[in-house]
Amino acid sequence: MRQSKLFGKTEKEERGDSTLASHRLLVKAGFIRESVAGRYFLLPLAMRVFYKMTAIIRDEMNKKGAQEMISPTLHPLELWQETNRDNAGNFGLMLVEDRRGGKFALGGTAEEMFVDVVRKFQLSYKDLPFNIYQFSTKFRDELRARGGLLRVREFVMKDAYSFDRSAEEFKKTYDEMSDAYFASFKRMDLEANKVLADNGYIGGEYCHEYIVDCAVGESRYLVTADGSYLAHEDVAEIALPPMNGDEEIRDMISIEQPAWVKTMADNQKFHGAPAWKYLKNVVYRRSDTGEIIIVTIRGDLDVNKTKLEKLMGAIELLEDATDDDLAKLGTQSGYVHSWGHAATYVADLSLYSVRNFIGGQKTDTTDTTDVNYGRDFKHSIEADVALAQPGHFTKDGKELFERRGVEVGNIFQLGTHYTNKMTNATFMDEAGTPVPYYMGCYGIGVGRTLATVVEVHHDDKGIVWPKSIAPYLVHLVALNNEEGEIRDWADGLYTNLQAAGVEVLYDDRDARAGEKFADSDLIGLPYRVVVSKKGKAEGLYEVVERATGEVKKVSETELFALLGVATV
Amino acid sequence: MRQSKLFGKTEKEERGDSTLASHRLLVKAGFIRESVAGRYFLLPLAMRVFYKMTAIIRDEMNKKGAQEMISPTLHPLELWQETNRDNAGNFGLMLVEDRRGGKFALGGTAEEMFVDVVRKFQLSYKDLPFNIYQFSTKFRDELRARGGLLRVREFVMKDAYSFDRSAEEFKKTYDEMSDAYFASFKRMDLEANKVLADNGYIGGEYCHEYIVDCAVGESRYLVTADGSYLAHEDVAEIALPPMNGDEEIRDMISIEQPAWVKTMADNQKFHGAPAWKYLKNVVYRRSDTGEIIIVTIRGDLDVNKTKLEKLMGAIELLEDATDDDLAKLGTQSGYVHSWGHAATYVADLSLYSVRNFIGGQKTDTTDTTDVNYGRDFKHSIEADVALAQPGHFTKDGKELFERRGVEVGNIFQLGTHYTNKMTNATFMDEAGTPVPYYMGCYGIGVGRTLATVVEVHHDDKGIVWPKSIAPYLVHLVALNNEEGEIRDWADGLYTNLQAAGVEVLYDDRDARAGEKFADSDLIGLPYRVVVSKKGKAEGLYEVVERATGEVKKVSETELFALLGVATV
Repeated sequence: MRQSKLFGKTEKEERGDSTLASHRLLVKAGFIRESVAGRYFLLPLAMRVFYKMTAIIRDEMNKKGAQEMISPTLHPLELWQETNRDNAGNFGLMLVEDRRGGKFALGGTAEEMFVDVVRKFQLSYKDLPFNIYQFSTKFRDELRARGGLLRVREFVMKDAYSFDRSAEEFKKTYDEMSDAYFASFKRMDLEANKVLADNGYIGGEYCHEYIVDCAVGESRYLVTADGSYLAHEDVAEIALPPMNGDEEIRDMISIEQPAWVKTMADNQKFHGAPAWKYLKNVVYRRSDTGEIIIVTIRGDLDVNKTKLEKLMGAIELLEDATDDDLAKLGTQSGYVHSWGHAATYVADLSLYSVRNFIGGQKTDTTDTTDVNYGRDFKHSIEADVALAQPGHFTKDGKELFERRGVEVGNIFQLGTHYTNKMTNATFMDEAGTPVPYYMGCYGIGVGRTLATVVEVHHDDKGIVWPKSIAPYLVHLVALNNEEGEIRDWADGLYTNLQAAGVEVLYDDRDARAGEKFADSDLIGLPYRVVVSKKGKAEGLYEVVERATGEVKKVSETELFALLGVATV
Repeated sequence: MRQSKLFGKTEKEERGDSTLASHRLLVKAGFIRESVAGRYFLLPLAMRVFYKMTAIIRDEMNKKGAQEMISPTLHPLELWQETNRDNAGNFGLMLVEDRRGGKFALGGTAEEMFVDVVRKFQLSYKDLPFNIYQFSTKFRDELRARGGLLRVREFVMKDAYSFDRSAEEFKKTYDEMSDAYFASFKRMDLEANKVLADNGYIGGEYCHEYIVDCAVGESRYLVTADGSYLAHEDVAEIALPPMNGDEEIRDMISIEQPAWVKTMADNQKFHGAPAWKYLKNVVYRRSDTGEIIIVTIRGDLDVNKTKLEKLMGAIELLEDATDDDLAKLGTQSGYVHSWGHAATYVADLSLYSVRNFIGGQKTDTTDTTDVNYGRDFKHSIEADVALAQPGHFTKDGKELFERRGVEVGNIFQLGTHYTNKMTNATFMDEAGTPVPYYMGCYGIGVGRTLATVVEVHHDDKGIVWPKSIAPYLVHLVALNNEEGEIRDWADGLYTNLQAAGVEVLYDDRDARAGEKFADSDLIGLPYRVVVSKKGKAEGLYEVVERATGEVKKVSETELFALLGVATV
């Protein structure tokens, strides 16, 4: 490709003030342009990367026997109604109506569509297992889009849906998909971590996210030093050993306490005890029903809203209670009681780990102490709703550390979550009995993964593309090409490289050497091959490897050898 | 691929009563399934054909220097408003709104999006010409969907947009795209005809459709025996030589005429003159404004509604007038006057070809005769709105014949139609003056082309895929494979063929020979290779070429030679 005619120019200055390198560099280097917030054009350079990435993913999926197909973009809304997902949670399903009144969803995922196409066939146990997937545009009506391709409202996702006969057979499929994911990311030079995660509105019993560590990532997870436990903060579980198991249990008493003692800091100042000794009450309101939920938790812990939402069947529906909400309960911030308000109480399991809590019934002048959970109060809803933090320990006693990264893929066990809800989603077993399919689903966001590669592989000059997915292998940079002789020499090399099957971007522009080198670093192809007047005199090309900065002077034969192709 | 695990089974019986072979066969052979009317799943077999087709189109586009990219699926509605296409005509634009109130169109075409991305760059004459394209899902809210993939509501289209400096430069681009189209269709074994066509709501001055002849096609076009003129019925022009140029022009008179003379047949019966001698009046109503339009045309001709809609700026907005509409004009069917009603009159140019017309002012008991257009009445709107028919002649005197086919692609000159309407859609010329881009656009509907291949290439047993786009080259059919020895032999050949890079569908099912052969004919892969007990005894395979029915018995070495691959 001659750069003079390439659609998608580099820019000298960075636009905007994005903190994301992938956003800044992909725009500046001419890979992407925003249409409106969260919706991007992939320009020709990005398109080439995109196809190389999809080819890798396809190859790894096909190796596992998965079969590619494609579903319509508009999903009949009846299908989403069959599984109660048309309004489950607040996850940004976009709706569209045709002029005959037909209602459709612009899906962010396609479980219902794939179950629907499968149930159009009368399949038997002999036809199973199978795994079908597509690359297709997905839509999420995100409230906030981040800059660049990391969190968008429209994106291409590879989504696969497996159909097995049983939980046991499924385990093999799940592991195979995990292998395919690791292999795919590795081929893109991404080191992914397989992290236990929350399944959100997808459903099922367990799932994993593939997270590539990176400071700007939005996924926070906890990991042990030996890597035996990796769990997203949404689901990470911690050990809750007794904090003061040898302390004698005392009778609850009411004490005098000044009105200024409201926050945890106030309490510690007033009582001198550590944070875990206090009862903490956190209040939420369901945005759909208005229900008030009070979580009582050990004072040193925070509430994990994702765990709580899942527990309460209120995915993306819990909001922090306002002063108004508290006033309606007859209380105010700092005065919420651990029992007794007209609200739904949830007790975190950490309440069992402390004897003789301080707090629980604060008034203007008093509070309670030596409160013991299970004796002085007990809630019918008890669950783990605590947020894991670095320094906490796993249940088997290993310290947890914090990491951040970008979620580039995920795999879900679905079991019969969908096939039980949807009619006729069954196959015939050997006895002729209809049995619901046992399912899994598996997603990779292609654009987000592309951006993650840039987050991980760049320097202060620009992108450093891995060879496997670089838009071109070689950036042929012609200097002094205003001179016919040099231009002819460069043209000749361009022709020969292409004839040998090498993908070349040829900077044939009238521009200064400095500009060409800066653009070349910015675009970030693996090899820069410089044709110059000086080189012509020596019969040599200068080759610079982008990743290492290593410079070599080589003949055409040596160049072809270095690129691993036969001379024409 | 082992057929036992292929997702997408053949069916023994045909479902539904579609008159379209492509619909019946693609469903029966397990290539496609309907989601809802006009929206299809492409199953794994179809997906393979789809990718081979897109690879051919991409290759031919790239050979012409076109560059692939992709735009968002949701188009900001403001862009369509910039060109007044958000409600121009009734062509089925679907709208969608996000939860922040952003309005979007689900586009059936993407001119505005591509102009928008181009104007995000400050380009100069040096950067031109360029041609950018995408394969993306398009949406058309069709009132009627046909069976199968021929006319659908959602489909993948390759759409390209070229940006040239001038009309002259553009002509080369237009011709190159035409070459790329012929080459693409030829590689899919389709003989396409390049036919002058109407540009509908796309705009511009001229365009061509690529039509593959086929009885079930919806595109009717007219062609001369020598192929020098091919024009869609929407735009075909005909010669209008004087019909009675030597007849003396007489004075218009009113004659007695009984009330029963209403239709053309009545007139011919009463007056004994041929159809061309009468004035015909055809009445339409604009569905948007209610305006009544009366077309006066020579009695032997029909009105071409497409020409009329274009003339009146009323694309897809004209409806036949009802009895009510006529009553409001103070008339009724058979009594419409050629002048004098309170309506917009349009005179077809054919009115100039006849002297002394009969008709024009019919009442219950009278009519006029010897009416001469231009003398006795004249309309301010005069245009060619006649429908060409077989037997008519071109302006250079060649007889026109009728053909039907499927439109598989189209190319449009757009000129500055969009770049004049949209702001900043300009490049800097050599003098530093901003000049609007000179554009063209070019579409190929991939699914429709796939269906057309099946319409053209099938027999009563099933599909006959061209080698270039067949889902697999070889259908390996194992008979007697309940016997381990035969199964091992078949497995071995399957492994060897795959190792040699041959794409194989392997019928490893437990099924009768008759069923396997019927499925093999139905799916229609180029070569069937039969492994059987008898063949094993001889050490030979039976090879059947699907297109010719030719049968050969060959050794493994001969088989590989026949398939053009080296033995492993």
